[in-house]
Amino acid sequence: MTTTTLGLRPGGHKPGRVLLIGAGPGDPGLLTRRALSALKGADVVVYDRLVSPEIMDLVPEDVLQIDVGKAPGHHRLTQDETNALLVDLARRGLCVARLKGGDPLIFGRGGEEAAELKTAGVEFKYVPGITAAQGAAAATGVPLTHRGLAAGVRYVTGHRCQDAVLDHDWASLANADTTLVVYMGAMNIADIASKLIRHGMASSLPVMAVSAATTPRQTQVISDLGHIAEAVGQAVPEAPLLFVIGHVVSLSPTAAQTLAITAPETQAKAVRYG
Amino acid sequence: MTTTTLGLRPGGHKPGRVLLIGAGPGDPGLLTRRALSALKGADVVVYDRLVSPEIMDLVPEDVLQIDVGKAPGHHRLTQDETNALLVDLARRGLCVARLKGGDPLIFGRGGEEAAELKTAGVEFKYVPGITAAQGAAAATGVPLTHRGLAAGVRYVTGHRCQDAVLDHDWASLANADTTLVVYMGAMNIADIASKLIRHGMASSLPVMAVSAATTPRQTQVISDLGHIAEAVGQAVPEAPLLFVIGHVVSLSPTAAQTLAITAPETQAKAVRYG
Repeated sequence: MTTTTLGLRPGGHKPGRVLLIGAGPGDPGLLTRRALSALKGADVVVYDRLVSPEIMDLVPEDVLQIDVGKAPGHHRLTQDETNALLVDLARRGLCVARLKGGDPLIFGRGGEEAAELKTAGVEFKYVPGITAAQGAAAATGVPLTHRGLAAGVRYVTGHRCQDAVLDHDWASLANADTTLVVYMGAMNIADIASKLIRHGMASSLPVMAVSAATTPRQTQVISDLGHIAEAVGQAVPEAPLLFVIGHVVSLSPTAAQTLAITAPETQAKAVRYG
Repeated sequence: MTTTTLGLRPGGHKPGRVLLIGAGPGDPGLLTRRALSALKGADVVVYDRLVSPEIMDLVPEDVLQIDVGKAPGHHRLTQDETNALLVDLARRGLCVARLKGGDPLIFGRGGEEAAELKTAGVEFKYVPGITAAQGAAAATGVPLTHRGLAAGVRYVTGHRCQDAVLDHDWASLANADTTLVVYMGAMNIADIASKLIRHGMASSLPVMAVSAATTPRQTQVISDLGHIAEAVGQAVPEAPLLFVIGHVVSLSPTAAQTLAITAPETQAKAVRYG
């Protein structure tokens, strides 16, 4: 990658820096003020496929945009290549906005990119973002904690690189007093649900699957642990899917009627957000 | 409370509504764009003591501000009184911004207030906020998840109303593969740490206590599970305290030197943020 192809000015006198920025769940209104000003002040924005087009519309036209999008199986840049790109851009004296969906420090690999920047002697800072679980909660009316229903909340990933086995401590996860949020679980939800049931969670525990929360494309499916895999399989919502597992799902305005229906009749609901 | 004392216009023709808004951890730059526009468009802001003065400075001067602050033992308004106030204000036709520290749906009792509004037939929506754990992570450089160190993250409360016993499932919490964040744990950290150790967590597991994260008053203490209560007791940081327990704390830029020191020498560090 040369200066010419990127159209960048050569490394100047001022050292560059990288801001590792959370873009939030998708709604551009849920970007923080700091994140927006960072995008406006950046020389270049390096972004992921999890950043919504509505957010990218906020980036000024004269700011260079580099897509390092990571659709499963279609890595345009590997993580190592992305790390090297960030270092290279900063060494050219550029102010780099590294924009990630959600929060860079919750399943965002922000700490990994930071470690590379630190090793390379590049200055960096984090700007947190609303994580997908929070966006889904606010947009569907399902609290993550709630007196009498959930004393805490836990985020785990349902995805493993290179199709490795999910090796969570299932006995620890099967705790119905804690809302369990599974990120990127679409491929493995049948396995996850059956392991949770085997470790003592009730198959009647409510579960909500949410896709593209807080965007006009938001879709949600409500079922229970025993039927969620089948319900999601039928509905085929847009990936990546977030699962909220726990009693709090019963507070969803649409839960009452949905939970009375068993899986074969469960419908994906496109919910207007905003 | 009468129209006269509040200086409010009497109920108009348009029905009022309530926005349950997360103010984030304290830094006004970490307010979302939606939250800021809600504050600017509100007739009245009802806020908590956990909302930083820097955030309140963003509220336009002509917007009425009502403090329902909840310093422990000094409830200005009970939760029931706050609920009734929100309903009353909305029924006067006002647009109410109910502003809470962090995220309304993570230890923010947003779901409880929403339930009252729903019962009263008052329209409401949620606006999520950066929760304290995310603010602390970004401001201290400690990721909440990190490959090889933490496969997930869990938020629990260390506080119980009316000094009730903390009744967490300690065996489930004592899982060193998951970053454990304890909100409002200052009073009970000695008890929490000893229970986690008794259930199998290493006493050498790194712990960070953070106060007022992302504000100019941010203070942090790094120690380990066996010494954190003593370290915090000496440092006496400003409450409320957030504890981050897990291997990820070793990634803190200040952890290396701090962890080499046992508790009696541990110092609270006022860290410049921004």
